[in-house]
Amino acid sequence: MADASDRAIVDFRTEPSRYRHWRVSYDGRIAFVAMDVSENAGLRPGYELKLNSYDLGVDIELHDVVQRLRFEHPEVAAVVLTSAKERVFCAGANIRMLGQSSHGWKVNFCKFTNETRNAIEEAGTESGQPWVCAVNGPCAGGGYELAMACQTIVMADDGNTSVALPEVPLLGVLPGTGGLTRLVDRRKVRRDRADVFSTLEEGVKGKRAVEWNLVDEVVPRSRLEEAVRRRAEALAARSDRPGDARGVTLTPLARTLEADRVGYRWVTCALDRARGVAEITVQGPDAPPPPDAAGVRAQGVEFWPLALARELEDVILHLRANEEQVGLWVLRTEGQADLVEAHDRVLDRLAGDWLVREIRLYLRRTLKRLDVTSRSLFALIEPGSCFAGTLLELALAADRSYMLQGAREGDPRPQAAVRLTALNFGAYPMPNGLTRLASRFLGEPGRVDDLKGRVGQDLDAAAADGAGLVTFTPDDIDWDDEVRIAIEERSAFSPDALTGMEASLRFAGPETVETKIFGRLSAWQNWIFQRPNAVGPKGGLSVYGTGERRELDRRRV
Amino acid sequence: MADASDRAIVDFRTEPSRYRHWRVSYDGRIAFVAMDVSENAGLRPGYELKLNSYDLGVDIELHDVVQRLRFEHPEVAAVVLTSAKERVFCAGANIRMLGQSSHGWKVNFCKFTNETRNAIEEAGTESGQPWVCAVNGPCAGGGYELAMACQTIVMADDGNTSVALPEVPLLGVLPGTGGLTRLVDRRKVRRDRADVFSTLEEGVKGKRAVEWNLVDEVVPRSRLEEAVRRRAEALAARSDRPGDARGVTLTPLARTLEADRVGYRWVTCALDRARGVAEITVQGPDAPPPPDAAGVRAQGVEFWPLALARELEDVILHLRANEEQVGLWVLRTEGQADLVEAHDRVLDRLAGDWLVREIRLYLRRTLKRLDVTSRSLFALIEPGSCFAGTLLELALAADRSYMLQGAREGDPRPQAAVRLTALNFGAYPMPNGLTRLASRFLGEPGRVDDLKGRVGQDLDAAAADGAGLVTFTPDDIDWDDEVRIAIEERSAFSPDALTGMEASLRFAGPETVETKIFGRLSAWQNWIFQRPNAVGPKGGLSVYGTGERRELDRRRV
Repeated sequence: MADASDRAIVDFRTEPSRYRHWRVSYDGRIAFVAMDVSENAGLRPGYELKLNSYDLGVDIELHDVVQRLRFEHPEVAAVVLTSAKERVFCAGANIRMLGQSSHGWKVNFCKFTNETRNAIEEAGTESGQPWVCAVNGPCAGGGYELAMACQTIVMADDGNTSVALPEVPLLGVLPGTGGLTRLVDRRKVRRDRADVFSTLEEGVKGKRAVEWNLVDEVVPRSRLEEAVRRRAEALAARSDRPGDARGVTLTPLARTLEADRVGYRWVTCALDRARGVAEITVQGPDAPPPPDAAGVRAQGVEFWPLALARELEDVILHLRANEEQVGLWVLRTEGQADLVEAHDRVLDRLAGDWLVREIRLYLRRTLKRLDVTSRSLFALIEPGSCFAGTLLELALAADRSYMLQGAREGDPRPQAAVRLTALNFGAYPMPNGLTRLASRFLGEPGRVDDLKGRVGQDLDAAAADGAGLVTFTPDDIDWDDEVRIAIEERSAFSPDALTGMEASLRFAGPETVETKIFGRLSAWQNWIFQRPNAVGPKGGLSVYGTGERRELDRRRV
Repeated sequence: MADASDRAIVDFRTEPSRYRHWRVSYDGRIAFVAMDVSENAGLRPGYELKLNSYDLGVDIELHDVVQRLRFEHPEVAAVVLTSAKERVFCAGANIRMLGQSSHGWKVNFCKFTNETRNAIEEAGTESGQPWVCAVNGPCAGGGYELAMACQTIVMADDGNTSVALPEVPLLGVLPGTGGLTRLVDRRKVRRDRADVFSTLEEGVKGKRAVEWNLVDEVVPRSRLEEAVRRRAEALAARSDRPGDARGVTLTPLARTLEADRVGYRWVTCALDRARGVAEITVQGPDAPPPPDAAGVRAQGVEFWPLALARELEDVILHLRANEEQVGLWVLRTEGQADLVEAHDRVLDRLAGDWLVREIRLYLRRTLKRLDVTSRSLFALIEPGSCFAGTLLELALAADRSYMLQGAREGDPRPQAAVRLTALNFGAYPMPNGLTRLASRFLGEPGRVDDLKGRVGQDLDAAAADGAGLVTFTPDDIDWDDEVRIAIEERSAFSPDALTGMEASLRFAGPETVETKIFGRLSAWQNWIFQRPNAVGPKGGLSVYGTGERRELDRRRV
């Protein structure tokens, strides 16, 4: 089993010149994304990425593709996804890779791939950049899950091409990237058909695939390209993305990795591995925002909210993949609330601008990553902090928060305050579709309306506590002990129990495809990934491809 | 680890004269249910039920209490739940029992206790029989989960009494009976407070418990009895349960257990353990229903729908607990659709009668048990069957159905038909709150309205297929092979993968407290119940009470 100690650091940063597995081309309003996985370019040794099967490295590139389409290509108003291989669309996640991975690696891999599928879906629903999938060969497991994240699926009707979710019959695990949920909740496939389909190793092709709503259209292979292009053009014609704007190039993200510190321009992370704690500090902006959309564009990746999204995303992904033993993230901010609020006002006022929309959506996706991160999140709100608007979402995403009441001895800075902006009331919904404020006050929805009247006010600890925005408000005398004990206690609890508890408490209220995927489906998948029937010496993942037979414990649980 | 092979059969049937753990008394409109667990009367050897901790045997009695309050006591319009012990309300599920139980036993135990809590909740919302909980001593884990299933919680304010969910800090597992979900979704406790509460071994007492909405009221110990009675009386005054009706005595349920057969009056179950298949056949009624409420009452437990509910519930519980290796249940019916429909008409017409309401709710609860059963369900619809109305729900609850098209050679009976009644359109919602028809046609909601126009019609295989009510319709030539192969294939798949798949596919659409408990929360709990941090030799459940220290794998997953 691979273990954190013997693994190289996983780096989620990449760029087109380094792609090994994807080819992207452009034709006016339409981009073409072709999957062309290099067999021998797996992220780890020990497996070959045959038949367009994928590992985390392939998906890191796909995530980069999605990001660059959104930011660098405002003119792209529809995306065609297809395979560059002759005989296969995509065989899904690589089974040997899964078989040799640790439990934690498998779970983290599935989380990241799910987040990328969600970003593809969001491109269509929020960003005027719908994806159309051209299934031009067998499309199985994770391949079909990728197809289902697209707005439209067109499949070749050629006797060879089918869609399938063969995980249950073939391997004894679940499709790991939202497949079962998207099947019945997004594509609304009838449950008995979904049952048949999900147990049919060879999948479904032709007219039945349309009748069951597994795909939207089948066409002869010779007409696939044309049919897909026609659909993409029709979708592009309805998109509101500007044809004549200039994109923002996502230049390489600067990062310094030291033994116990990860540093970026605005985000730093101090690691205390002995205690299992990461302290993540976000710096607020150091200057007022540009006044208009042209100014935002001119700043590009230097525009503080965009830089923040990139750095925060990278530190989240880095810690998840590379610091498994660090179970508690402490979130801090430093800076001037006025400048954060000023940037929020720009994000609010220019919401109709394509670039500002992308930045808001990027922040939204990044904050959602926090929500589904299996680490405890504590926010510490102290003098000198700037938990305002967008940055206040960090405290609202935390499992609990501590806010220092009154001044701190020897600290001349004013006492801590939090501040609401318009963006706390709709810009950043959680995976359950509600704002963090609405989720927080499910039992007292009137509080959200009251808080709208307090936008822009500095709320000190007593006011924030009264408003229900913070958990504890110790004073300077109690602060150190109270925070220290809370951190020590948290670090002593079972990491597994905390993961299950936090996943249950963070998402009260309504459910969505996203919460079902990260809550219900992932929990079942994780369970199955622990069962001897899947990962034991004679389990499905272990014997796959060896010629040995699975041996199953037949007891139902 | 306890295993099915070395366990005595678990019998879910009991009656008040055999209770060891509960005392029930009556005072006019109010019933008093006192928990008084006998330490040395555990269902299995190896643990003592100290401090009102419970095992499956205690919960089997509680389930019986709930059922008898509903059927035998129409006059009871509110129920007070309390402890008969001096110093404790309830310490929750017995930890030593959990520590020595197999994974399957733990999971099945939690499922049954959850179903009973749901029935307590439903008594208040649907049946005019709300429960009020008088917390008169420490109330921890499963004890507090039981309290949360009640409509109102009143707690003594005496320095000794608190509510707590100590599972995460104390044991490294989740509260197993809906606690985390009820906390944030039913009681709508703010998520950060829920986080603090669920990690606080000693729990919360006094005013803070009210402020956080963990309980509804705290009163001095000396006034607890009076305060609870006053609340119960107020609730009873609003109840629509009749004060002067006579209840129906739930006489002992007759059952014959043979080596490979379980038999009741209307339900029989043939076991093929080698293939892992149970064939459950339900007989339709053999006579027309009584014409009015008085006639229903006169028939009492002999009234076919009530007898059906009792027998179906018992066979479900029996198979779940005692036949773990039987992973596929094949559902059949035999009888006359006209007589089933006639009974449904009575259940529809007399829905306002208290007893008919109880029978409908009992059928609803029993059908929900099918929905959350971790076994594959196939329905076989053949000549001589009577899948009409209430019995059609069995086919709609199945993961898939096979309906024989045309006549069967040598079988003089008319070809198979299914028939809708009014009860398919609202009487039996699934745990997700939708009817099975609405869940089935999430993607084509118009179909449900169309089907309303076909109530009472016999739909043959072609019509049923066209209406989307069945999965496959092989003819006599193909039937045997197709059904046999489907059963053999199903039995060859990983039982774990099927459990996760079915739990994901059965509940598309909206989510409720119930689906969150059985889907998300149980899946996480099952996962944690597999983890070395909980069940390994140095895990929380293993070392509890031994004086040894837990040893935790600190990696977060």
